[in-house]
Amino acid sequence: MTRKIRLGAFLPGGGQHIASWRHPDQPADGAVNFDFHVQLAREAERGLFDAYFLADGLATSTGGLSEGGPARVAGFEPVSLFAALAPLTENLGFIATASTTYEEPFNTARKFASLDLISGGRAGWNVVTTATEAAARNFNLDNQHPHAARYRRAAEHVAVVKALWDSFEDDIFIRDKDSGTFFDGAKLHATRHKGEHFKVEGPLNVPRSPQGHPVIVQAGQSEDGRGLAAATAEVIFTAHQRLDTAQDFYRDIKARAAGQGRDPSHILIMPGVSPFVGRTEDEAHEKYDRLTSLILPQDGVALLNGLTGGTLDLTGYDIDGPLPPAPPTEGMKSRQALIRQIADDNNFSIRQLYQWVASARGHYTIIGSATQVADMLEEWFTSEAADGFNILPPWLPTGLTDFVDLVIPELQRRGLFRTAYEGRTLRENLGLPFPVNRHAAARAAAQAAE
Amino acid sequence: MTRKIRLGAFLPGGGQHIASWRHPDQPADGAVNFDFHVQLAREAERGLFDAYFLADGLATSTGGLSEGGPARVAGFEPVSLFAALAPLTENLGFIATASTTYEEPFNTARKFASLDLISGGRAGWNVVTTATEAAARNFNLDNQHPHAARYRRAAEHVAVVKALWDSFEDDIFIRDKDSGTFFDGAKLHATRHKGEHFKVEGPLNVPRSPQGHPVIVQAGQSEDGRGLAAATAEVIFTAHQRLDTAQDFYRDIKARAAGQGRDPSHILIMPGVSPFVGRTEDEAHEKYDRLTSLILPQDGVALLNGLTGGTLDLTGYDIDGPLPPAPPTEGMKSRQALIRQIADDNNFSIRQLYQWVASARGHYTIIGSATQVADMLEEWFTSEAADGFNILPPWLPTGLTDFVDLVIPELQRRGLFRTAYEGRTLRENLGLPFPVNRHAAARAAAQAAE
Repeated sequence: MTRKIRLGAFLPGGGQHIASWRHPDQPADGAVNFDFHVQLAREAERGLFDAYFLADGLATSTGGLSEGGPARVAGFEPVSLFAALAPLTENLGFIATASTTYEEPFNTARKFASLDLISGGRAGWNVVTTATEAAARNFNLDNQHPHAARYRRAAEHVAVVKALWDSFEDDIFIRDKDSGTFFDGAKLHATRHKGEHFKVEGPLNVPRSPQGHPVIVQAGQSEDGRGLAAATAEVIFTAHQRLDTAQDFYRDIKARAAGQGRDPSHILIMPGVSPFVGRTEDEAHEKYDRLTSLILPQDGVALLNGLTGGTLDLTGYDIDGPLPPAPPTEGMKSRQALIRQIADDNNFSIRQLYQWVASARGHYTIIGSATQVADMLEEWFTSEAADGFNILPPWLPTGLTDFVDLVIPELQRRGLFRTAYEGRTLRENLGLPFPVNRHAAARAAAQAAE
Repeated sequence: MTRKIRLGAFLPGGGQHIASWRHPDQPADGAVNFDFHVQLAREAERGLFDAYFLADGLATSTGGLSEGGPARVAGFEPVSLFAALAPLTENLGFIATASTTYEEPFNTARKFASLDLISGGRAGWNVVTTATEAAARNFNLDNQHPHAARYRRAAEHVAVVKALWDSFEDDIFIRDKDSGTFFDGAKLHATRHKGEHFKVEGPLNVPRSPQGHPVIVQAGQSEDGRGLAAATAEVIFTAHQRLDTAQDFYRDIKARAAGQGRDPSHILIMPGVSPFVGRTEDEAHEKYDRLTSLILPQDGVALLNGLTGGTLDLTGYDIDGPLPPAPPTEGMKSRQALIRQIADDNNFSIRQLYQWVASARGHYTIIGSATQVADMLEEWFTSEAADGFNILPPWLPTGLTDFVDLVIPELQRRGLFRTAYEGRTLRENLGLPFPVNRHAAARAAAQAAE
């Protein structure tokens, strides 16, 4: 089988670009409009995307000056939203973000197993540690835990969740009405986890779901983040501005995974790409200029503050002057460095910087014709920089529709993208293996040794 | 407007009666079959029920000997299930159980606000403290917290959730694309809660939902439980075996609510009723006998153990002899007393006791024609014992279909039940008031005082 590009779609109903809600095409209430999310899911499915991806945070700002722009001050909780979209779609995967810091593993395991059951095997969990001070203050803390502590908890949280997902063996249910035997008790397993952060007896009260385990997604770029990703992730969402840094990251993660005894082809690297696509390059630039013209300076400044850890106060700085240094934080270290790199590489003023990152917050932004966008994707895909991409349409639904109508057919013509879904589950479409239940595997090994 | 009976439907896909999965009508995989839940929701909506109600626990037994019977060893997480059912229905409410002990208020507030948004205002939260040792062991504890401590935490948890639901005033959004004004910042409010159990800064990151607050449901019968219910609940689910105790409870709760300055008509008392309905009384008894004959003794004994707090070991006792005394526990005190009362009142053996409680676990079981069932409901409704009922069909879907086809028309003929949904939201259908946002109310009061 030829290797194909995998595609996720970031489709926040409020729009990706901080000014997108002001665009005539975008419903101003998109963030809280359920029917709009149904439309987006169906459009992504028409484009044969692997998955609908939603980021998530556990706080909003009273000033509304969040990095997502004012239209994202409030929205749906991702797992309940995806559960509602699942029966209205057939093949699209759903990757929801959930926090290892502010949830308990039993609840995490349960809601994703339930989503996987509801969707017939189309769930994915984007594992995040939730890196904002504002979120900490919603969960009984004055300050968030240090970066390294969050990652230690994350590793343990994921391990417990995966153990809980193996509580029921796949073939446990007998359901013989005549004898009254419902299941084979030998195939139901306690977890009995006792670790630094969690004690969880188990078993989970949801059966093993169609995928065995929902797909594990991760986006950490720091040393801690890469370690966690190499150990547990099956899909990695990453941000790069240049082919060479993307290649470095790709090779590093694949090597780390191999070092942990994993098959490197079972960990898919998917950088974010924000495409402005036109029938011509000029038309694409018109689309970019139009959205950029809609950014209010205070929203742009709030975006930079959010992206640099929430501690960068730009009050009193000339927005046509350079970006001042920011104090160190316990927030997302990798993204702070990336934003700084973009400013330095391009010698951007504050205004130029927020204009550039307004659509994709540090992800690669490309402005061009379908051929040019496909060229870029093909180059990264064929030169060890990416196994696929997370597409961040700058505004919705048109930014998505442009990609589906213009870029997808070009990728298909080149033999780089599917023309129909290969499988029934997200895991099958991504070409990821089915995780064998650990207890069934242990029994099989014991029997083989006899 | 004439007062009407309100009806909730308990529809666990695995069946209510512990042997229901062995009934020919019931899909043996009902507990984990999403399509079956869709069928049940649509059937309840055909019957014009106010709401679909799901109980919930945060543990399952490795032996599978849970009080729900073996078919309920595993199932869906209720909020994700209801989110998925919401777009497939139009009027039916969804009351999901969630724990104040093992979740954080920010997450609770968020998922119910999200469900309310997805369903267009049809969400309810059944507030429980989760009273089992097994659940405690899934959440980092060796033993569950004492009963009184759980209720203190519950009261604070509910208060924080309600405060978070008022983060956004109803008319906060302006969404003026021309000026770039998305919302009125003066109408977004922090919570700033600091209490015994929780510190929550707020605001919530979900807007005020269509109902303002999802409907608060509660089922505590103990002194602590009644106090919490009178203070916060809008619907009370309760279990009674006799009209007189139901009346005592009804009057007590209404008086407590009035004592807290609440309108007693805004707190609806809905006892559970498990109906075996036939076209004749004989046919109803045949249905009862048929289900009873399917109970395996070990499942009956496990049921009694679960209902009496998980500490009653009946090993070695003659199941045709009397129920031995049980040690005191920190579990659900009220239900332990109720089960004991049923055994004592009827002089039941262990076998007779589990046969009687197998369908409804301490709720009122009635076996009769549609007229007889309607008579009972009418008597309780008109004599200050109930504002409505939670119907627990013993097996599914037929137990529900019998009620919809036989009892509902009889109640409608008597003018006791709706012939069409009155409103768009659960709150409107239940005749409950819309909770005015506290911050908007404070501003209105301040303006009136000027």
